Amino acid sequence: MPTLTFVPPEVFESVWTSGKGSPETRAAAFADLARVNTLSMVMQAGSGHLGSSFSALDIVSWLYLTRLDVYGGGSAAPLAATFFSSKGHDAPGVYSVLTASRRLDPALVHSLRRLGGLPGHPDVHTAWVEANTGSLGMGISKAKGMIAADRLQGRGQPIYVMTGDGELQEGQNWEALQGAANRGLGELTVIVDHNKIQSDTWVRRVSDLGDLEAKFAAFGWAVARCDGHDLTAVAAAIEGLEADPRPGVLVADTVKGRGVSFMEEFPADGDFYPFHSGAPDVDTYGRALAELTTRASALLADLDVELDTYGIETPDRAPATGGKLVDAWGAALVARAQRDEKVVALDGDLLLDTGLTEFSRRFPERFIECGIAEQDMVSQAGGLALRGMRPVVHSFASFLSGRPHEQVLTNSTEGTKIIYVGSLAGIVPGGPGHSHQAVTDVASFAAVHDLLVVEPTHPDEVAPMLDLLLDEHAGSAYVRLTSPPVDLGFAWPADTPRIGVGTVLRAGTDVSLVGAGPIVLRELWAAAADLDGRGISAGVVAMPWANSLDEQWWQGVIDAAPHLVIVENHVPAGGVGSHLLMRTALTGWHGRSTHLAVRGVPASGGNDEVLQRHGLDVRSIVEAVARGRSSR
Amino acid sequence: MPTLTFVPPEVFESVWTSGKGSPETRAAAFADLARVNTLSMVMQAGSGHLGSSFSALDIVSWLYLTRLDVYGGGSAAPLAATFFSSKGHDAPGVYSVLTASRRLDPALVHSLRRLGGLPGHPDVHTAWVEANTGSLGMGISKAKGMIAADRLQGRGQPIYVMTGDGELQEGQNWEALQGAANRGLGELTVIVDHNKIQSDTWVRRVSDLGDLEAKFAAFGWAVARCDGHDLTAVAAAIEGLEADPRPGVLVADTVKGRGVSFMEEFPADGDFYPFHSGAPDVDTYGRALAELTTRASALLADLDVELDTYGIETPDRAPATGGKLVDAWGAALVARAQRDEKVVALDGDLLLDTGLTEFSRRFPERFIECGIAEQDMVSQAGGLALRGMRPVVHSFASFLSGRPHEQVLTNSTEGTKIIYVGSLAGIVPGGPGHSHQAVTDVASFAAVHDLLVVEPTHPDEVAPMLDLLLDEHAGSAYVRLTSPPVDLGFAWPADTPRIGVGTVLRAGTDVSLVGAGPIVLRELWAAAADLDGRGISAGVVAMPWANSLDEQWWQGVIDAAPHLVIVENHVPAGGVGSHLLMRTALTGWHGRSTHLAVRGVPASGGNDEVLQRHGLDVRSIVEAVARGRSSR
Repeated sequence: MPTLTFVPPEVFESVWTSGKGSPETRAAAFADLARVNTLSMVMQAGSGHLGSSFSALDIVSWLYLTRLDVYGGGSAAPLAATFFSSKGHDAPGVYSVLTASRRLDPALVHSLRRLGGLPGHPDVHTAWVEANTGSLGMGISKAKGMIAADRLQGRGQPIYVMTGDGELQEGQNWEALQGAANRGLGELTVIVDHNKIQSDTWVRRVSDLGDLEAKFAAFGWAVARCDGHDLTAVAAAIEGLEADPRPGVLVADTVKGRGVSFMEEFPADGDFYPFHSGAPDVDTYGRALAELTTRASALLADLDVELDTYGIETPDRAPATGGKLVDAWGAALVARAQRDEKVVALDGDLLLDTGLTEFSRRFPERFIECGIAEQDMVSQAGGLALRGMRPVVHSFASFLSGRPHEQVLTNSTEGTKIIYVGSLAGIVPGGPGHSHQAVTDVASFAAVHDLLVVEPTHPDEVAPMLDLLLDEHAGSAYVRLTSPPVDLGFAWPADTPRIGVGTVLRAGTDVSLVGAGPIVLRELWAAAADLDGRGISAGVVAMPWANSLDEQWWQGVIDAAPHLVIVENHVPAGGVGSHLLMRTALTGWHGRSTHLAVRGVPASGGNDEVLQRHGLDVRSIVEAVARGRSSR
Repeated sequence: MPTLTFVPPEVFESVWTSGKGSPETRAAAFADLARVNTLSMVMQAGSGHLGSSFSALDIVSWLYLTRLDVYGGGSAAPLAATFFSSKGHDAPGVYSVLTASRRLDPALVHSLRRLGGLPGHPDVHTAWVEANTGSLGMGISKAKGMIAADRLQGRGQPIYVMTGDGELQEGQNWEALQGAANRGLGELTVIVDHNKIQSDTWVRRVSDLGDLEAKFAAFGWAVARCDGHDLTAVAAAIEGLEADPRPGVLVADTVKGRGVSFMEEFPADGDFYPFHSGAPDVDTYGRALAELTTRASALLADLDVELDTYGIETPDRAPATGGKLVDAWGAALVARAQRDEKVVALDGDLLLDTGLTEFSRRFPERFIECGIAEQDMVSQAGGLALRGMRPVVHSFASFLSGRPHEQVLTNSTEGTKIIYVGSLAGIVPGGPGHSHQAVTDVASFAAVHDLLVVEPTHPDEVAPMLDLLLDEHAGSAYVRLTSPPVDLGFAWPADTPRIGVGTVLRAGTDVSLVGAGPIVLRELWAAAADLDGRGISAGVVAMPWANSLDEQWWQGVIDAAPHLVIVENHVPAGGVGSHLLMRTALTGWHGRSTHLAVRGVPASGGNDEVLQRHGLDVRSIVEAVARGRSSR
């Protein structure tokens, strides 16, 4: 049970109000203290983004202290300017400033990524958070709308937007820039946290940005550039931009992981930067903390402030167990590519999270890293397919089903075959928050012409499904993958997948429990066991196909029991449940149906918390079965 | 009954093979002949894009003649290079070249926008068309994928992609450019048809592009610029780009409507360019034709080629009658804005087609023209709403439901209210082709948190619906508008709209016919009359709400008759039918259901042809009712 170290708000306030040194010196000390809390918040949450919180924190602290006047007028008074982070995954750093300054309840520092606490990415339902971000590239556009509203209402204040550098690969940024220049939105200052490393590796390896200053200048913006950790230089640069009637951008050269020596280094012998996301182990935490507190103590000594801290005991993190679909996918794709030279994999800066590491090493010539540019990626896949290749496109389900939807639709009209693979599908993990919790992805893809949507439950299904999609279906497909490892609690039958046919895992005569994916099936299986104890005979069926159905097989499922309960890790509209219920209605079946699905915006929190909140846990399923029986 | 003039393929071939003059001179003469056929094609079709076909045709002709070697090796031989138009709406011009050169059957010149003929935007199922375009900004990405495939397969040829200039407002272009430079895709040459006018008006008025050459250079491309109608200059510029190892772009300064004096002029006293889309009237056609043939005759005389032509009689176009939802929407929005100062309208370069002309004149300060940048538009709306305004976002349904889908989703998590309005929804008009036929838009929007989807049928519904959405629903909404004027054939009852409740237009005891929107309701009403004659009593219900339902009202509808037939102008998945059938299944209703919806890629053709092809016409509905009865 490690003890985590936090800095209380009084120390932050003492630093800022010490009156010693320049505002920039005090802001830098403040930022180092904020790094301590950020580190411990991520450690307590068990996940979160340290590297880019640290690269941004000097500027974020300086903005809140000098431009937003975070200590001005009490914790409820309006801030003097607007700031938000477009990249969003630096939320722990921002929270550390807001809790330190008591703009947020300081106790919230211990509730990162917990239900009712601070979500993994920014959400406006948290006080002083100005925009929901984390889905990249939207911040400049959002700020343009805010400025238009402010002007119409005869008020207005400066708006500062922080972006990542990898984030600039998103086309929306460049869509947004020209209009801001044309409309003379001088209120707007964008700061690019140019730490040169995106999720997995160097920006220049993923999709080099070229001459950023020339780009912004060509789009009509005032441009400045400086060391983003030299706050004197930052202050001068931003003052220059503020004086310019054009919208301004500061390209701030920063260091990812800034403040902890070993987090500032890109491993010389490695392909990947290790501190983009995730919590460190206990030993690494201790070493990072020691560096941060040593440096902060020295800075605070200059300001005559003592570094008080307090400790919080946190439980050891249980090691993850269970199968991972993403790993099975990666292995299946490698195996397929070995005997199928037409297979090309495309990735949107999520190599590690989409299972493509091995593929990218084994088949570098057939691996296209597209960067954070999903529209470009999907249309490139269209071009590859038109010329006879079999492109397999990877991203998180949220991004792949949202950003490039019109590109997917256009590809679908060309009669080619493209496999889209969305990982991190569904409502868990609940930590990252709704920008990363894909619960409308099936609705997007299931409506696309001649495109099969499939969600496997067990790793063993994945390889035969890939072959099925490539060899037996003429059109395209969307493969929906949940990411957490799952212990299903039951053995998987060695059936060969068939299109439109699910897997009956156990028979039952009172109720048929139907769902897709390991999260849901684990709950259904446990619910069935619970129902056994109540004398209710529950069948459990995994139905991976969300928009195709073997009607004869399905008739057998619904005829087996008078009550059909469909549970899905997706909103009610457009998912597997709506499809099955629609098809059931067309059969004229006379049973009773219940549909449990995700309603409302996905909550951010622990996985169990989130499943329970959204009524997808064992208890909710058992209760739904009981309600269905009592109302018959 | 006007007679249309066409130039036969022999004349084109004689021009190119005359051996007189330079290739550039002959290509220019060829292009002028192609303008004659393009003009007559659009006239025969009754719609199509003249202005940008004409601005592009000199370069398009030159590319096909010199780079693709369209006359080389017979009409089935591979072309020497790849060309496609990313903007896509210049398809008539491209078709005129392909039919002139006999790469396409010359008879197809008379089948523009007809079923089985040449679709309004490019489709790969037409010979020699390389990519489906028309949904803007995808061309450069597509070409990148083609080049990757060509390289992997050890073959390769130059690829030329034509873009519009307004099209460059789409962020995907800028997403695509950097990767092409980083990967050294020297095979790729992009030509910007820089005619300075987008759909409605000057590019500089909509969203000025700034210094285009500097932009492309900043993204790492080789850049050239010249007069796009001076083919000697074009040839030199493209040769220079081809010799450069970088991907190259030619910014070609062109004139929209080039070749017809009065189509080259932007009306001095007008706000809008009149020849972007649509067929001219008979008199205008005659004047344009006279100019083109006079000039072509002179050019051909220099080449010792005689200008033979042939005539095709075409029926007079019937004037459109019936109500237009888009006009009603525009009027309702103006009325609302007069008493509600929070209303702000946003447009994506479709002012005339979304009914916003009057609004933009009356409330210029509350009208934001975003250009062809839907992602930026939707996120701006998010920013406006966060600051207390009521943004109303307009585009075509295809574009609004596709391109900015992740932005819509993100906005939905912020708890604000935004009204999205998609016009040109559904399968008709059938002329433009599938890029403009929105049949998955409801599926996209209906899954969004707290967002109501509504499709009015009658213009009288529109204003009260707008008030309902703004005043009685806390969340956002998507208003789906079909664009063609429709004579419904029945009077509209003066009911006040209520959320989740439809309008029973007539009662019936044998079958309930349910649908949304004027196209479907016109067919349902006529089908009910037909069924009367067969002794079948059919109720007709307009159900505008695609994801909300008053269960008591619905129970009344389904209990009225034992057969429920839902007809929808949308794919089966995720639309009003899937919602109603899902909800019906959950009631345990014991009747029989039938679902007619759009299956397959929407066909391009005349409106009646398309409705019949997709089984949404009166006869298909009557047959479905009869089948349902016989199988009971």
